[in-house]
Amino acid sequence: MDKNEIIGLLKEQCKLASILSEDVLEDIVEESQLETFEKGEYILEFEEKTPAVFILLRGSVRVSLISDDGKEKIFDHFHAGSLMGEVSTITRATAYATITAEDVCLALEIPIPVFKKKILSDIKAFNHLVEVMSNKLGKVIPGIEKHTSCQEKNDPYGFKLTTKTPQKILVINCGSSSLKYTFFNTEDMENSVDGQVDRIGTAVPMGLEYNAGKTEIERELEPGTHKDAFDAIIQILTSKEFGIISSPQEITAVGHRVVHGGDKFSHPTLITDDVLRGIEEVSSLAPLHNPVNLVGIHESMRVFPSAAQVAIFDTAFHQTIPPHAYLYGLPYEYYEKKRIRRYGFHGTSHYYVSLMAADYLKRSYTDLKLITCHLGNGGSVCAIEHGKSVDTSMGMTPAEGIIMGTRSGSIDPAVILHLMDSEKMTSGEVNQLINKQSGLLGLSGISNDMRDIEHAVKQGKNRAVLAYKTFCYSIKKYIGAYSATLGNVDALIFTGGIGLYNSFAREEVCKGLGALGMFIDQEKSKDLNGAKKVVDIATVDSPVRILVIPTNEELMIARETLSVICAD
Amino acid sequence: MDKNEIIGLLKEQCKLASILSEDVLEDIVEESQLETFEKGEYILEFEEKTPAVFILLRGSVRVSLISDDGKEKIFDHFHAGSLMGEVSTITRATAYATITAEDVCLALEIPIPVFKKKILSDIKAFNHLVEVMSNKLGKVIPGIEKHTSCQEKNDPYGFKLTTKTPQKILVINCGSSSLKYTFFNTEDMENSVDGQVDRIGTAVPMGLEYNAGKTEIERELEPGTHKDAFDAIIQILTSKEFGIISSPQEITAVGHRVVHGGDKFSHPTLITDDVLRGIEEVSSLAPLHNPVNLVGIHESMRVFPSAAQVAIFDTAFHQTIPPHAYLYGLPYEYYEKKRIRRYGFHGTSHYYVSLMAADYLKRSYTDLKLITCHLGNGGSVCAIEHGKSVDTSMGMTPAEGIIMGTRSGSIDPAVILHLMDSEKMTSGEVNQLINKQSGLLGLSGISNDMRDIEHAVKQGKNRAVLAYKTFCYSIKKYIGAYSATLGNVDALIFTGGIGLYNSFAREEVCKGLGALGMFIDQEKSKDLNGAKKVVDIATVDSPVRILVIPTNEELMIARETLSVICAD
Repeated sequence: MDKNEIIGLLKEQCKLASILSEDVLEDIVEESQLETFEKGEYILEFEEKTPAVFILLRGSVRVSLISDDGKEKIFDHFHAGSLMGEVSTITRATAYATITAEDVCLALEIPIPVFKKKILSDIKAFNHLVEVMSNKLGKVIPGIEKHTSCQEKNDPYGFKLTTKTPQKILVINCGSSSLKYTFFNTEDMENSVDGQVDRIGTAVPMGLEYNAGKTEIERELEPGTHKDAFDAIIQILTSKEFGIISSPQEITAVGHRVVHGGDKFSHPTLITDDVLRGIEEVSSLAPLHNPVNLVGIHESMRVFPSAAQVAIFDTAFHQTIPPHAYLYGLPYEYYEKKRIRRYGFHGTSHYYVSLMAADYLKRSYTDLKLITCHLGNGGSVCAIEHGKSVDTSMGMTPAEGIIMGTRSGSIDPAVILHLMDSEKMTSGEVNQLINKQSGLLGLSGISNDMRDIEHAVKQGKNRAVLAYKTFCYSIKKYIGAYSATLGNVDALIFTGGIGLYNSFAREEVCKGLGALGMFIDQEKSKDLNGAKKVVDIATVDSPVRILVIPTNEELMIARETLSVICAD
Repeated sequence: MDKNEIIGLLKEQCKLASILSEDVLEDIVEESQLETFEKGEYILEFEEKTPAVFILLRGSVRVSLISDDGKEKIFDHFHAGSLMGEVSTITRATAYATITAEDVCLALEIPIPVFKKKILSDIKAFNHLVEVMSNKLGKVIPGIEKHTSCQEKNDPYGFKLTTKTPQKILVINCGSSSLKYTFFNTEDMENSVDGQVDRIGTAVPMGLEYNAGKTEIERELEPGTHKDAFDAIIQILTSKEFGIISSPQEITAVGHRVVHGGDKFSHPTLITDDVLRGIEEVSSLAPLHNPVNLVGIHESMRVFPSAAQVAIFDTAFHQTIPPHAYLYGLPYEYYEKKRIRRYGFHGTSHYYVSLMAADYLKRSYTDLKLITCHLGNGGSVCAIEHGKSVDTSMGMTPAEGIIMGTRSGSIDPAVILHLMDSEKMTSGEVNQLINKQSGLLGLSGISNDMRDIEHAVKQGKNRAVLAYKTFCYSIKKYIGAYSATLGNVDALIFTGGIGLYNSFAREEVCKGLGALGMFIDQEKSKDLNGAKKVVDIATVDSPVRILVIPTNEELMIARETLSVICAD
């Protein structure tokens, strides 16, 4: 291959080459040499010194880490035009991963002094390389962090809950007046069991629901506490007639949904005394949720003393949001000393549907830019870049963001002061107002339920139209904002009750988003009333895919629980 | 021209034709006839019954209104493929404007029964027509509203302040401790005069500034009130040595900046007792601004008793924002009874720079989709569609929106309650915090001035970097949101101190907006430190233009004042 051919190949395939001048490019090619690698040959080895910088001219390679037991974790694939070895050269470190040829590869081997003199000295090329580097590292680092040793190849994200030793997991979502539970047996994933106890702590009888396949039981219980609710669940789970376990000791792990992890918890965490204290410490940020989550954990420790107790935080997935997106414009001390910042919620759901999207799109998770809309009675929008949440619409509390069933979403902060000063409301009344009486309910005066709003819109009720349009517009603005955050978005994802079932809202949200590359197929969307699996409702030629994906927070919590108890 | 030729022309040029089936198109052509119009001939006449619906096949026409004195106001031009007469046919009204052939025109004249039977009955065609109609009406209605009879053809937006009778206008911006004034003589626009009195109402001496061309005067006055400040201004304006008028009676009109017009005032308004009451009534929404604006008006009425007093509202331009964008997610009664909604501010500036953009781009104002960023110590972003504000970042008060010099911008509303409950702050303290101690100042701990922040960033101060990045990111999100609001944006506009002088901030805001079609030419932007006229800093092939435009709120207020006193 002669010099001109190499230059031609570089210009065609390699962004970096298009930044360099013709002269510089010629110099580089003259001072470099061609190298061939056989299939399976290592081009760079993890923690080895990098001998040179390579530009792949033909073939493809994989970027991976190989663990002590010989298992390989693949993070990325590079194709012709990609650089290899530049990260370690620039950072003066050893290779952060192993690069292996996947077929016969041809590469241009650039000696490090040439690379530094001809490329790094060019400010535009340097800037480009910094971008390339941060992309690459973005794929590897979360990959390492998120990897669970329980997962299998045909189940890249571990949703089959495959484990070396069988596990029986109970997922607990403990609210102030309800206790939801889901049981998974890793050896019998077809037969999960779920249900709830509601009306806890009231004067009226509690209700028990228990669904095990075709067995659907509803029972009325005495009025009672969270303790009574846990006892009732144990009783039915172990009952001779309907039970799925013979004793509480069979439960190997309990996964607890915890609403607020503050910035203490960025991963699922095995619950220890320290962790209990940590959850308590952030309770001031979520006074309605964390204390009752703690009640659930304590009851669970009582009834399942031998099980591993794991906390899965709604906020954890968002702990990758960078400071410029999580800081409010308040004095910095309010963040530093009082931890007032954006935390975000619904992390388990955003994380789950984004993994399902990667699976559906057959793309590497850490390669994608996604906007996920979780639209239930509460709702939030999330910007996900290379597998990491980089912004989300909920804030320090779930009150911020889009308009919700009964929450106001974002409003001028001075409105709160105006309500207290001019309208003489107390902070408790305002809190009740913005969390319980606002949103779809407050605007429409009809209901917090989008199905009722849709019905009223079709009857021509003006306030229902206002509620519907204002709700959808508040989501549309976040989709636009996060398009600016992410750059070219790969997919827009809808989940949650409204996202799954309400084509009426989906269409209004997506109307006019063509300029952002999002074209909804109205017919396809209209026909879709709920989805059991991922459904693409974008037009065939829409540059951005629009996916409807049923969320499954319980399965995700079980998976996250396993990642803790099976890790290493 | 035979049937097939006509069908060919229609399919080529007319979007509607592409929606209809081949059969229907043939039927329509068969039942219609060709009509020729000479140059200058009316095709439709204002307020006449429409004889038929026309599709223009060749030539071009203008849409206009002709006033009683024979002056023609042009709102739009249609070219081949456009429909004429469909609006009045669908709305069963008479023509909303006159359509005149600009050269020899050929049109297909479709009888109204045929139009109804063949076109309106098709749901897709009908939907398309509704879109076309709303576009058309969007161009005419603001055109009619905004037209001032003082304007001339070579000055389409009236900034030369050309008038039939000469006017001497004083523009007053009255704040709590400062009084800014600008004097315009419509017969001598080169020699405007401006200045201010500051430190009003304090124990220290007031300062007077007076700038008249090369004459620049600074004087110290006794400590005093707004009354004293007005008297000082009169004295210097009429002084033998430096004065520009010989007596206060020469002033024909005073234009007052009024911060909050609520939803009472959507236009510049001649001040009457009713108007004074109206301004007072909305004072509860702007307790720091409106009362002092009223003081300025009363003082002005005292010293210029014979002048017309006109109020120009910061909120007026945003009164076109539709309900789904101005409503908060609060119960509807809070809007209906307490007027809690988004109002927006900086209207005079957003309106001015958007007109200047239309002039620079040589496009019809009512044809454009613009995003304007007014970035000063206060700052806001505005989405302008066809000459109308359709959304803006400030809310009921100027506290909402982007991060500003000392204002927090948007934060979780529950943070306000948390500060009061957990941190025991009073509403006055929180108000002070979010308006005076937050933003760039609070985040950086250094300054509210972006020039100081830039300096500190370059020295590597971490909190300055955080302040700078968080500020820019808050703007970027609005640009994204309003791209979703508007669809294809024609231009992104920067104005205000930071917008004009700070390339550092402009570049960070625009970084990564390529997916929205916005590509900044970094070299051009870097070289631009302030601008006397419109400068385009987008790359040559950027689909969206990026313009830097110096705002001129005083000139705009003078122009708006004239539009009131010269209108018919």
